[in-house]
Amino acid sequence: MPPSAATLETPIHRFAAGVDEDAVDQLAVEEPLEIRLGFTEDGKPVHRAISITMRTPGNDGELAAWFLFTEGIVSSPEQVRQIRHCGLSIGRGNGALDRAAALNSNTIRVDVVDGSSVDLEKLKRHFYTSSSCGVCGKSSIEALRTNAAPIHSSLVVESSVISSLPARLRQEQDVFALTGGLHASALFTATGELDIVREDVGRHNALDKVIGTKFLDGETPLSDRVLLVSGRASFELVQKAIVAGIPVLAAVGAPSSLAVELAREFGLTVVGFVRDGRFNIYTGHERILFGKSDN
Amino acid sequence: MPPSAATLETPIHRFAAGVDEDAVDQLAVEEPLEIRLGFTEDGKPVHRAISITMRTPGNDGELAAWFLFTEGIVSSPEQVRQIRHCGLSIGRGNGALDRAAALNSNTIRVDVVDGSSVDLEKLKRHFYTSSSCGVCGKSSIEALRTNAAPIHSSLVVESSVISSLPARLRQEQDVFALTGGLHASALFTATGELDIVREDVGRHNALDKVIGTKFLDGETPLSDRVLLVSGRASFELVQKAIVAGIPVLAAVGAPSSLAVELAREFGLTVVGFVRDGRFNIYTGHERILFGKSDN
Repeated sequence: MPPSAATLETPIHRFAAGVDEDAVDQLAVEEPLEIRLGFTEDGKPVHRAISITMRTPGNDGELAAWFLFTEGIVSSPEQVRQIRHCGLSIGRGNGALDRAAALNSNTIRVDVVDGSSVDLEKLKRHFYTSSSCGVCGKSSIEALRTNAAPIHSSLVVESSVISSLPARLRQEQDVFALTGGLHASALFTATGELDIVREDVGRHNALDKVIGTKFLDGETPLSDRVLLVSGRASFELVQKAIVAGIPVLAAVGAPSSLAVELAREFGLTVVGFVRDGRFNIYTGHERILFGKSDN
Repeated sequence: MPPSAATLETPIHRFAAGVDEDAVDQLAVEEPLEIRLGFTEDGKPVHRAISITMRTPGNDGELAAWFLFTEGIVSSPEQVRQIRHCGLSIGRGNGALDRAAALNSNTIRVDVVDGSSVDLEKLKRHFYTSSSCGVCGKSSIEALRTNAAPIHSSLVVESSVISSLPARLRQEQDVFALTGGLHASALFTATGELDIVREDVGRHNALDKVIGTKFLDGETPLSDRVLLVSGRASFELVQKAIVAGIPVLAAVGAPSSLAVELAREFGLTVVGFVRDGRFNIYTGHERILFGKSDN
């Protein structure tokens, strides 16, 4: 997989060893993939969109073919007649897909051989809707443009506060300490006081539980809070932060390309790799203050 | 959140410092939550299941209420009339939900106030189906019972091979090295030779791309392969491994409670926390050989 498709270069503001400076970082690309099924019904060709998933481009044909297997649409590779990507036909000789072609599009169609019995009802039965899916990237940005407001907040946070958050979170992560198997989300004040923390096997759930508590308490939008997440900052987590009106999202891990794109458009500050006294600012670095104590 | 609901004790076989022994570990609990909406239509009460998500029990009311907000069903906390859990009414006094009650059930219902206009079509428009959702835990185990076969494989793996896998994976994770933002899945032979590795922002996608490649090449079921995943072993990853017929799943992180339960039922070997020469065997430890070189 060529780095050009799976990674994206982005300007950042880096803070390390007490010094902040402009730099460049590589983001993992996150894009929506729509999987379509091509089959014949009453002798006529039918194309049906059956799934959207957020993924890093590459090997989309394999992803789509296996999805059809797990959904019971095909039971052997021979039932896959053709996999098309962005209008390009992708060869299946020796099982090798044309990776270059597969990187050009976010829509892929798997055509099954004629005579395949496609039970779309069965397909539907296997689909569970879930808040964990988020919504498709590009169309979701469009939806947010009309439904969500850009972040308006005069919140500023000292760089030393950002650096202190992970240690505060770990102090409170009681279940994580036992199992090592949970994600956490926490809200802090601008001065680094812990407000609320929730843990869950799903990182989206941990965040939803945090925001949901504030929502039921009548405290949304959360325009005076800093959010810390224990893992990576995906498109979906950024989306949730924007809907909740949170101005600063700090992540222990890396953000994805689409997460940064969305944050930039809606004025959310995204800080990543917050660990060991270092961090990278990907968007909105005007909300982070570098004081004398840092330099 | 009491540890009894968010964690589950399980017997394991631990390998560390060259010694293997029986031990006990704490698992993060993963269970499905069904969110139901209660509203009135033409003066009659209607209850409708609108989402299923895999989560760690606790704060389910907050999770469900926020889900309704993000879906545009409610726009303020005042529109939430009542949240019921397993037939119990949960108070909203001072915004504090009854956490004890909230831990008793995997179904929660949010009733909106009379006169709320519920646009279920709008709800549907926002739902994207996705392979990343997996399917609901318990019902999915039922579905697997009829559709998937227990793992039949005579594969055995030396403990030294298990320990060596993460280092081999890191050698191959080219995009991860650049971005730090990707999950990886890899297949190895029983002697620890790398067969295939794929990276993705979604760990389920990374695994689907690995299995999908083998599927198109006509090589499934993968009964002679060891699977390594870079993160945690969720219910969904275990489910995918079983469908692909893989006998051994090794994870750098922790497995969830439902992942272990499912693996035990289908005869999949699950090894977790494979790092720094240590690991825990959660199920199927007969496939792991402890040789003289370990002791």
